[in-house]
Amino acid sequence: MTSSLPLAPSLREMKEAHRRIIPFIHRTPVLSCQGINRVVDAEIWFKCENMQKVGAFKARGATNAVRSLDPALWHLGVATHSSGNHAQALSWAAKLAGIDAHIVMPSNSNRVKVEAVKGYGGEITFCEPTLESRETTLVSVLKRTGATEIHPYNNLNIIAGQATAAIELLEEQEDLELVMAPVGGGGLLSGTALACHYLAPEVRVIAAEPAQADDAFRSFNQRRFIPSVNPDTIADGLRTSLGSLTFPIILTYVDRVVTVREESIITAMRLLWERMKVVVEPSAAVPLAVLLEDHEAFRGKRIGIILSGGNADLEQLPWQS
Amino acid sequence: MTSSLPLAPSLREMKEAHRRIIPFIHRTPVLSCQGINRVVDAEIWFKCENMQKVGAFKARGATNAVRSLDPALWHLGVATHSSGNHAQALSWAAKLAGIDAHIVMPSNSNRVKVEAVKGYGGEITFCEPTLESRETTLVSVLKRTGATEIHPYNNLNIIAGQATAAIELLEEQEDLELVMAPVGGGGLLSGTALACHYLAPEVRVIAAEPAQADDAFRSFNQRRFIPSVNPDTIADGLRTSLGSLTFPIILTYVDRVVTVREESIITAMRLLWERMKVVVEPSAAVPLAVLLEDHEAFRGKRIGIILSGGNADLEQLPWQS
Repeated sequence: MTSSLPLAPSLREMKEAHRRIIPFIHRTPVLSCQGINRVVDAEIWFKCENMQKVGAFKARGATNAVRSLDPALWHLGVATHSSGNHAQALSWAAKLAGIDAHIVMPSNSNRVKVEAVKGYGGEITFCEPTLESRETTLVSVLKRTGATEIHPYNNLNIIAGQATAAIELLEEQEDLELVMAPVGGGGLLSGTALACHYLAPEVRVIAAEPAQADDAFRSFNQRRFIPSVNPDTIADGLRTSLGSLTFPIILTYVDRVVTVREESIITAMRLLWERMKVVVEPSAAVPLAVLLEDHEAFRGKRIGIILSGGNADLEQLPWQS
Repeated sequence: MTSSLPLAPSLREMKEAHRRIIPFIHRTPVLSCQGINRVVDAEIWFKCENMQKVGAFKARGATNAVRSLDPALWHLGVATHSSGNHAQALSWAAKLAGIDAHIVMPSNSNRVKVEAVKGYGGEITFCEPTLESRETTLVSVLKRTGATEIHPYNNLNIIAGQATAAIELLEEQEDLELVMAPVGGGGLLSGTALACHYLAPEVRVIAAEPAQADDAFRSFNQRRFIPSVNPDTIADGLRTSLGSLTFPIILTYVDRVVTVREESIITAMRLLWERMKVVVEPSAAVPLAVLLEDHEAFRGKRIGIILSGGNADLEQLPWQS
């Protein structure tokens, strides 16, 4: 099965991606929590990508991209710019494949994520926390090294890899009405939406985004690309703009983009820690925050949520003053 | 199958307990984490009782005890003294059965646990943080109310209920060499040891205890009951003394009691949060702390660990200054 879009992974490509990465990634558990179900008055199944390799779904896309690389280019390595989890994931996937990873990171990146990239052997070049600085710094790294760029989300192999989380969720939980994912650059969201389109077309896909980084919400509703300018959200994985590949897929296959307040994100994050006993990072809590803000719209629904990552800073929790 | 001890639940009683509580408790997941396996150089399967109802294995024993009560006594309710999780569990199990729970708690109990008991509808009477004060206060509550005492661990229905966590672990993971549980009063440990004795007699059972609350270690090795005097450990679930029912079972069916330092408990707890992405309380981290302190003794082993509870205070984490 293929998409009506010229540049979107087909079902076959997504299944090939899944077969390619299965030896290297975890099949993460799908957990539910009656305490949280009661709070939101719905039935939720959480796909625990916080328990994925490197603590985030990004391990899926990075592994697929690295393992899809032309062998003639392996010796030059891979490179990317990323605020965090993709940086870790690419460093890890590259190391596992025995190749170099060059990582451009904004100087305000989460400390835990910077340390993790170093731990996985990624070679970091810091830049200013703007898209322009990320891109110009990456260009100079690419020129210097000859490495292949693996964009965090605007890459078909990445999108196909991220889609595999939803493929597994749909395999295990067959009667979902909705699937929700957070949206930053749109790699996870576009993969999730395509997986649902191919495998469970009756399932509606809802994107969750911080109101203080609402470029996807505005782009989706105005049906034209609007970049993320000075996003100011605790959900540090969701500060980026959509990509030229992810945006058309999202426009075509996502039903709705919903924004939430910062305090709802923190409340949702704490609920997941306190009631479900799982460590998630703020970005992962954004879909549950949608349910907290609007009980009525989702009452009684059967909902799958991709818990995108668990790389929270354990030294400083957002509810601590 | 029965035990050679006069006062220990039989296999039949443990299986009946399991059938009795299944409608009310969670079958918790068994998770493993390659990152932690690498750190300790062993293969561990964690039975996630932190994800159990009320956030701890105590829901099992409390449910079994409440549901085994003589119906003629239901209207008088149940009562106990407990530093925390049993108090929550009994309050919750009683409320679910529609009966009252009277809880005596030491004044230095974990704030989160006190709030939770109140949330489950338990009626709290505070006492001094000594065994004597707990017991005299409980006696006065029992006289006043006529409630049935449900001791946190020195009760055959409680022991049979706690055993069901190990029963499930052994069902799912058939080739374990060791099973580890923390020891406070010994309810979880004695149930775990009996379950292994009946169902997997080749499996060795190892108890883990904070060195700063080492009454079980000393009692076990001297083969005579030694009470816990002024225990000073972050593992607040493990400060109590063994009971007259739990101690003989432990002496007969546990292979070894191992003590660990406070800093190892904190390191193990953080490892579980950071690498496995699960929220556990300090007591639950004590078995992993044993593996951290003595790699050699456990290298290459296949180990089941009961993660006893997840009711950590999220306002103040032990690694934060």
